[in-house]
Amino acid sequence: MSNKLPDINTHFSDWYNEVIHTAELVDNAPVRGCMVVRPYGWSIWEHIKDNLNDRIKKTGHHNASFPLFIPESFFKKEAEHVEGFAPELAVVTHAGGKELEEPLVVRPTSETIIHFMFAQWIKSWRDLPLKINQWANVVRWEKRSRPFLRTTEFFWQEGHTAHETHQEAVEEAELMLQEYVNLCHNILAIPVIAGIKSNREKFPGAEKTMTFEGIMPDGKALQMGTSHLLSQSFAHSFNMQFQDRNGELAYPYLTSWGTTTRLVGALVMTHGDQKGLILPPRVAPIQVVIIPIFKAGQEKDTLLAKIQEIKAQLEPKVRVEIDDSEHKTPGAKFYHWELKGVPLRVEIGPRDLANNQVVVGNRLTGTKSFIAIDQLSQVVPSLLDDMHHALFARAQERQDKVTHNGEKLLNFGPIIAEHNGAYKTGWCQRPECEDELRQYKATTRCILTTHHFTECFNCTRPSVSDVLVAKAY
Amino acid sequence: MSNKLPDINTHFSDWYNEVIHTAELVDNAPVRGCMVVRPYGWSIWEHIKDNLNDRIKKTGHHNASFPLFIPESFFKKEAEHVEGFAPELAVVTHAGGKELEEPLVVRPTSETIIHFMFAQWIKSWRDLPLKINQWANVVRWEKRSRPFLRTTEFFWQEGHTAHETHQEAVEEAELMLQEYVNLCHNILAIPVIAGIKSNREKFPGAEKTMTFEGIMPDGKALQMGTSHLLSQSFAHSFNMQFQDRNGELAYPYLTSWGTTTRLVGALVMTHGDQKGLILPPRVAPIQVVIIPIFKAGQEKDTLLAKIQEIKAQLEPKVRVEIDDSEHKTPGAKFYHWELKGVPLRVEIGPRDLANNQVVVGNRLTGTKSFIAIDQLSQVVPSLLDDMHHALFARAQERQDKVTHNGEKLLNFGPIIAEHNGAYKTGWCQRPECEDELRQYKATTRCILTTHHFTECFNCTRPSVSDVLVAKAY
Repeated sequence: MSNKLPDINTHFSDWYNEVIHTAELVDNAPVRGCMVVRPYGWSIWEHIKDNLNDRIKKTGHHNASFPLFIPESFFKKEAEHVEGFAPELAVVTHAGGKELEEPLVVRPTSETIIHFMFAQWIKSWRDLPLKINQWANVVRWEKRSRPFLRTTEFFWQEGHTAHETHQEAVEEAELMLQEYVNLCHNILAIPVIAGIKSNREKFPGAEKTMTFEGIMPDGKALQMGTSHLLSQSFAHSFNMQFQDRNGELAYPYLTSWGTTTRLVGALVMTHGDQKGLILPPRVAPIQVVIIPIFKAGQEKDTLLAKIQEIKAQLEPKVRVEIDDSEHKTPGAKFYHWELKGVPLRVEIGPRDLANNQVVVGNRLTGTKSFIAIDQLSQVVPSLLDDMHHALFARAQERQDKVTHNGEKLLNFGPIIAEHNGAYKTGWCQRPECEDELRQYKATTRCILTTHHFTECFNCTRPSVSDVLVAKAY
Repeated sequence: MSNKLPDINTHFSDWYNEVIHTAELVDNAPVRGCMVVRPYGWSIWEHIKDNLNDRIKKTGHHNASFPLFIPESFFKKEAEHVEGFAPELAVVTHAGGKELEEPLVVRPTSETIIHFMFAQWIKSWRDLPLKINQWANVVRWEKRSRPFLRTTEFFWQEGHTAHETHQEAVEEAELMLQEYVNLCHNILAIPVIAGIKSNREKFPGAEKTMTFEGIMPDGKALQMGTSHLLSQSFAHSFNMQFQDRNGELAYPYLTSWGTTTRLVGALVMTHGDQKGLILPPRVAPIQVVIIPIFKAGQEKDTLLAKIQEIKAQLEPKVRVEIDDSEHKTPGAKFYHWELKGVPLRVEIGPRDLANNQVVVGNRLTGTKSFIAIDQLSQVVPSLLDDMHHALFARAQERQDKVTHNGEKLLNFGPIIAEHNGAYKTGWCQRPECEDELRQYKATTRCILTTHHFTECFNCTRPSVSDVLVAKAY
């Protein structure tokens, strides 16, 4: 019962660092900025991945694989792109015992090498749309790293598509943004705010970047993924031309979109509490843990046999584990699985067995209830569903609490600087006004589709549309 | 009907290079030695991966993720290991715009970094066995590369385990070898020969390396994966100590085992024919392609509606695609899907529709048969099963044809040199005799469990056990 976590309300950042380590999601790697993702953490990512992969395939994309290494010259083909990524690149200069003629960049993102291949594959309008996805590791050299949230090597999927028309590319980028939002809402139980990045915050080389941002309990915004309308700039850089339906040469319209292992960090921050993780049931590696309660001399074998039966009964529907280790007390086990955020705990002792019932403990509410054993396989899935919805509702409520309306930066800026918090406000969309946010360590997180505010947060010009302002992770 | 492949009997290597490109498994990458795996090729790998991943999880292993980069100093901790891998390493010397203090190696395999972590996780016998697996990309700088068979970057899984006793580690390494053999036989329809590597051919730092080798139709051996009993050498190098059941400090016994995207190359070579790929049904991305046969003016819409129905009927059991593109003749489609190795082709025209039947073409036998539409969902899965077994039997027969018994190297050596072929023979297990194979470009592929030959293939000493000798891919 030791290992108390730092106070989640007053020391959120320390709480995060501590909980991801003690719950065995992650460990420090002996390489600066990298992380070792332990089985429990990797399993969460695998569940996210499986769900998103299904969405990607169902929307007509195909997985493929492109090289880890990209020739340095490729980056220089798209001017904004190289400028955006140059400071973050890791470079292989030696291989096979020799210095390389041309250094190889370890991919920070794969637009350049994928577009190089697209240029060879797209010859006619019949080759379009081309819709490719890759699950991969990428490397961006980070000055400050935090596991899952910002690491030198991270894991993601990157979708890359090419289309005949601008309109089709717009629809594609919007569709994938929507799939991400659905993933967050329906699977991770994280409410997100979707919108458009300002020109300063957009992806280097893109026409338009869409983003979905979670507002964490500490009032800072977490960019959880992006969907880019690249339009034709990269197509020109890589000389990607095809014969259109009129027999003329044309450039395709491109998109790219990605989300990362950062989602694991997002769900830890969004749902955890003072006792540890609370894992959203749909991605929890273990949804139910069964703990036998017995004393020496009691009918242990009968109990364990019954527990195996219960497990077998539940297994087709939910992910169950039994913790029957004998060197730990039930109390120590409760503590352990609470820390690990397992949604439901089933306790069963000889008296329960005699009554054909178990005790089910709910990780979110902390309540316990008796459930008849023959009802378990109906009740457990619906308890898990309920918990998903309760987690989403709680997260939405928390997000609303730290998201405010603000008229003038002069008023809300100092509050952000000192206490964090996300502010919806008006903006003239000029970078000069965006610059003023820096003094409060805030940035524009995304331009919203609403238009409640008539005036810019900084100048007296009319607002073009509302914008979300916050400190960013 | 153009694009004839090179003659598979006389120009096997050219045939391989051509078929993997024209069937769109792979494309040349703009980075030396790397490959772009196209969706059709990647999907085969995904099916292999899914099956193997299930086997790995069912045998009690957990997936995790370790960094791509390994400090150079880690490699130097295990002397044989660094010597074995040094010539193949790719090294990051610059990152974030600066020269690194210590260069980082791009992992060629992850023993060193994983053992560094194991040393922190294994404190007591209660922490054992520790059974971890990682799906990852690795990099080994190759002078000559061929897609799937030997590439600078390749994809694999690497299992890493630690055990209390030597015996447990032996059983683990043998179990995973057996899982690989089962994967090859039951999923890829590739017969393999399992055995033990000679000291010269074993993994740098291992006590014993087990291997499974396929004999390709050209009579060369392909090492398809390995399972290593690492024993305690790495545990000593990384100071991995735990308190055993008697309260004393002990070193665990380690294993590692892996197989790679090379399996895709293996199944292409094993099963293909002059018309192109023949994909083993259990990993074929498309198991059945449906081709409507209609002429202008005929009831196209009725036909297409019926085909959608047939697809829906088959889909719960098999992977089906419809090729209803209108700018290609049925003949061109037949040719295309034969090249791509789709196991079964369903043809259906208005007359078939009237008779409630379809024509099913078998890619392996080239035969066609009429099947009643309402029988399809029973018949198709069993046809696919039959094809799996027929492919395995055919591959076994071919392998037997190119695998011979040989008494003396003087006799069979020149035959290997000129015509390839695998030879089972006796060996005294001295490296001096192994050296003599080089003049014929052959190596020992594995030491067998049989003992038919009494004398060494080279000297007159008694044979310790039989050995398989061949040229290697």
